[in-house]
Amino acid sequence: MSTRLGVEADLRRYADLCRAAIPGYLPEAGGPVHLVDPVADYLGRPGKGLRPALCLATCEAFGGSLEDALPSAVAIELLHTAFLVHDDLADGSELRRGAPTLHRRYGLPLALNAGDALAVYALAALRRTRDRLGPALAERIAAEFEFMARQTVEGQALDLGWRIDNRLDLQPSDYLDLIMKKTCWYTTILPLRAGAIAGSRGRADIEPMIRFGFLLGAAFQIQDDILNQVADGGAYGKEPLGDLLEGKRTLMVIHVLAAAQPDDRARIERFLAASRPERTYDEAAWVARCMDDCGSVGFARAFAAGIASDAESAFAAAFAAVPASPARDFVRALIPFMVERTW
Amino acid sequence: MSTRLGVEADLRRYADLCRAAIPGYLPEAGGPVHLVDPVADYLGRPGKGLRPALCLATCEAFGGSLEDALPSAVAIELLHTAFLVHDDLADGSELRRGAPTLHRRYGLPLALNAGDALAVYALAALRRTRDRLGPALAERIAAEFEFMARQTVEGQALDLGWRIDNRLDLQPSDYLDLIMKKTCWYTTILPLRAGAIAGSRGRADIEPMIRFGFLLGAAFQIQDDILNQVADGGAYGKEPLGDLLEGKRTLMVIHVLAAAQPDDRARIERFLAASRPERTYDEAAWVARCMDDCGSVGFARAFAAGIASDAESAFAAAFAAVPASPARDFVRALIPFMVERTW
Repeated sequence: MSTRLGVEADLRRYADLCRAAIPGYLPEAGGPVHLVDPVADYLGRPGKGLRPALCLATCEAFGGSLEDALPSAVAIELLHTAFLVHDDLADGSELRRGAPTLHRRYGLPLALNAGDALAVYALAALRRTRDRLGPALAERIAAEFEFMARQTVEGQALDLGWRIDNRLDLQPSDYLDLIMKKTCWYTTILPLRAGAIAGSRGRADIEPMIRFGFLLGAAFQIQDDILNQVADGGAYGKEPLGDLLEGKRTLMVIHVLAAAQPDDRARIERFLAASRPERTYDEAAWVARCMDDCGSVGFARAFAAGIASDAESAFAAAFAAVPASPARDFVRALIPFMVERTW
Repeated sequence: MSTRLGVEADLRRYADLCRAAIPGYLPEAGGPVHLVDPVADYLGRPGKGLRPALCLATCEAFGGSLEDALPSAVAIELLHTAFLVHDDLADGSELRRGAPTLHRRYGLPLALNAGDALAVYALAALRRTRDRLGPALAERIAAEFEFMARQTVEGQALDLGWRIDNRLDLQPSDYLDLIMKKTCWYTTILPLRAGAIAGSRGRADIEPMIRFGFLLGAAFQIQDDILNQVADGGAYGKEPLGDLLEGKRTLMVIHVLAAAQPDDRARIERFLAASRPERTYDEAAWVARCMDDCGSVGFARAFAAGIASDAESAFAAAFAAVPASPARDFVRALIPFMVERTW
């Protein structure tokens, strides 16, 4: 069983492997500086590399070699980067990984286009699956990516729609439905399924990966929401209280709307009903304190812990046919890591 | 030989065929309203359908049936729609096909996401090529789309970069290099090549399609630039003088910078150096009158006519192996149509 330090070291090793491979999947001949520079920008700011690591390790656990899943791992990391660029634009975010967001640095038009280009390069990387695994498996993995992309754009529309419609009637189950689409498919389910297909040469039963990936991804996303609220911005790399300022409906927002005293609830509702520029940092900080008083962060932590616990049995089902290996241990060790991580 | 009315009727017939097929390629089960509505919006505003028509007719001319090229035709129309959404966002455009642009109607976040979704649906449509033509030809056509997408994002970066860098030293050859990447690959070259691959079941020599598509697409784009400048907005459906207000480096801008008197040139340079919000409609109208005085529109018309003339011989080379047919006649009739059209 991996220790906390062990899982972080393994994560770094897998992530570095993907990061080192990425330049080989980008256009060789440079291209216009107004494309090359913004495309390279986020790629040069190290993320956790969680998605490619999960894909590569799952491939190894199912008997494949790292190279079998490398095109998928690179494709998911490039696509993730494309999503970050477009999400930052949509949310009007200011900081990403400790530096200005792409649209703050290069302006909306170049950032938007760089996001599109990253998606093009992701699909180009994915098509190289064929060279290693042949056309039939490549087609299966491409179908997985297509399904995942549909879920992701639907999830993004739901998330934005909740804010546009100023939804105040949401339940934790609505939140789980949302992050299933917006986060889990691309962050965990797709990497698990693509990795298992590649590693097993298509023989693995990947159906149980949906439940395991959902629980693993939900634990990840809830912790992400908590970190956004409690981090001081330094190690976390986004603006403090960014989610609140953007009016995102997190589990903590859903909880505090149900748990706050009527006067406080009315004030929170006014905060959420305001437009983005009308929301002040001071008022967001007040909402955050109100959440502390109501135990909303504790509720989210307990919720994530419950999900992580369920993820253990889902992992056992999804990896039942797989013999013990360091790669299998790493995937399992990601479960506690998701809720314990501070970055 | 098709008449002007004949080519428009044929164009409408092919375009309607693609338009009727599109719903069968979109998600069946509806999905979130904040995704479905913006995705359907531009699709419900009839464009010319030039790209799918060119793809379908080329497929027929090379001996295929319409169904052989339908997934490609649908994919290129969906991708074109995705580009329109993102281009309108990048340019801050206000009107598209006679109504508010998507981001004016739904806001930046939903419009951006709808553009991404349209690209996802385009790729999903393309993958259905396999059902009809088998994996090898589907893979060839997918490679064509990938190459085209790379060209398009590079062209977009070049176009934006010229404005960001306030380039005043451009030649007509620079303009042609730009529109080759930004317009021709996706508007004409890809539809021609994908149509020929599908129609000939991969036997056609598609190399000459690059030259023919370049000339056909360049004639189209120059006429588009002219219409943007001379149209009153009604039938054209974009805001009058939109290109000038956005600082686009058209052939007419390149010409007038070389042909204007020093004082006028200095005033045009100040107009181009200004930021988008600083440029007034009145000043754009003055630049347009200056172009009239310098014969810049006439220069662009003559340039387009020369390109259309070259396109005739390029067509003969690209379609040399193809017997006479109404579909072949239609593609040839598009050459004069490109420079004579008023919409």
